[in-house]
Amino acid sequence: MIAIYQARTQARVNAALDGLFLAPSPELTRLYAAMRYSVMNGGKRVRPLLAYAACEALGSSPALADGAACAVELIHAYSLVHDDLPAMDDDDLRRGQPTTHKAFDEACAILAGDGLQSLAFSVLLDSALTPQDADTRLKMVSVLAQAAGPAGMVGGQAIDLGSVGLKLDQAALAFMHRHKTGALIEASVTLGALASGRAEKTELNLLQTYAQAVGLAFQVQDDILDVESDTATLGKRQGADIARDKPTYPALLGLDAAKGYALELCDQALQALRPFDAAAEPLRDLARYIVERRS
Amino acid sequence: MIAIYQARTQARVNAALDGLFLAPSPELTRLYAAMRYSVMNGGKRVRPLLAYAACEALGSSPALADGAACAVELIHAYSLVHDDLPAMDDDDLRRGQPTTHKAFDEACAILAGDGLQSLAFSVLLDSALTPQDADTRLKMVSVLAQAAGPAGMVGGQAIDLGSVGLKLDQAALAFMHRHKTGALIEASVTLGALASGRAEKTELNLLQTYAQAVGLAFQVQDDILDVESDTATLGKRQGADIARDKPTYPALLGLDAAKGYALELCDQALQALRPFDAAAEPLRDLARYIVERRS
Repeated sequence: MIAIYQARTQARVNAALDGLFLAPSPELTRLYAAMRYSVMNGGKRVRPLLAYAACEALGSSPALADGAACAVELIHAYSLVHDDLPAMDDDDLRRGQPTTHKAFDEACAILAGDGLQSLAFSVLLDSALTPQDADTRLKMVSVLAQAAGPAGMVGGQAIDLGSVGLKLDQAALAFMHRHKTGALIEASVTLGALASGRAEKTELNLLQTYAQAVGLAFQVQDDILDVESDTATLGKRQGADIARDKPTYPALLGLDAAKGYALELCDQALQALRPFDAAAEPLRDLARYIVERRS
Repeated sequence: MIAIYQARTQARVNAALDGLFLAPSPELTRLYAAMRYSVMNGGKRVRPLLAYAACEALGSSPALADGAACAVELIHAYSLVHDDLPAMDDDDLRRGQPTTHKAFDEACAILAGDGLQSLAFSVLLDSALTPQDADTRLKMVSVLAQAAGPAGMVGGQAIDLGSVGLKLDQAALAFMHRHKTGALIEASVTLGALASGRAEKTELNLLQTYAQAVGLAFQVQDDILDVESDTATLGKRQGADIARDKPTYPALLGLDAAKGYALELCDQALQALRPFDAAAEPLRDLARYIVERRS
């Protein structure tokens, strides 16, 4: 079920994203090519899926969430480009392909990342992709800026870099992930809900509870896959986290307990969706998929 | 005259900026310290001055332009942090102090720059700093995203990096600067004008003409100072552009003709302001200051 929904939302967001990388002048061809390369790379599009699914869970057409879906994917893509840089994680491979600084060069990768962040805000101001009224759009821009910023995703990356070699307890590990990946996953759901034009406070709160559980489950499963999968399936170096002495859930809880925790989080996510009708089925399917995925 | 106005606007924007770097949790102390270090560094605050002065030129209180002033300075500061990185210009000094990646580390500098960009958008969504109505704020966010993005400042940096060692003609050099520095300078004026709540189309057009001339004059003068000033006055390595074989106006036109061109641009800027009354005096003073400054 989720595979069909995922394929549909991937096609939808890819079509919207594809229109964003036309260089406005020949001098900018290389920068735009680097941005396109960083985004149009066969990514799973989990965050766009969450945005579309949240919009649909509230009974609105996914077309309303195109801007939200593009914005969160552009932020995600920029964060990966910068995260892969030699001064950060120093990764050569991303989804089985050379990382942006390998395919282009470091300076170009820094600028492509910077440009993708600006572009994420631009799509929320593009009335074709984000047809909401001014108040809603302003709220969406605010949610994105908070989630992407130093008190959100960027803060999480800083905490992560500062944690290498440290012994974090479970609370500290959760705190790091709530910033590093959780903030943007939560924003994906919130932006999709806002885009629906039908988000009431109660529903927004439930969707945020769902998103927090799913976000953490996603991270726990990522840590498990880093231990269990091989490099070919994963598209990046297997065991990379352990090699870097990064704190992980399997290292902290043991592999079996980490798997149990992922399932518990999946269950929490499903509980939060109980008041929703069948339109929330894609969100439910995604929660299940996250803990079942092998790559 | 401009010295007094500059001191006043520096104090005003510094007070507003200073409140933005309080780490929301102890884990984020270092990231916020790096952002603060990158911004609170005795910068000239030319872009905030332009925002305040444009707002006042239209007869409104500078208090309305605090958000605009902070936003453009945060974008400027982030661009310098990334520009100074080893993979970019590889500069150790900025305003006589170690650059952010020297004072902290490269990863921290990349993240601080990323965070400052998000923060720039956040201040336009903070109703204390940006008290305008939703439509105006949305327009302001849009202007900032365009100016900062790949079709603006980031694009200009990419063109600049691609131009090292190339023989650019004057049109190509102007094209590069119009993106690299011109876009944000123009946005500073536009954001200040929008913040005033009194910007009519005719006045916006005149202010944009002013900003384009001033932006280019600023760059021509920067190139002249790179030839003429010493490192102590400049706070960065003198002759750095020439050492890197970057295209400059003195190299292209000769030093005297470059000086003449700067004066001509200053005059164009003043012409654009002719329909404005005495409230535009700070903008006029700034145009004169730019071509007279020695650092």
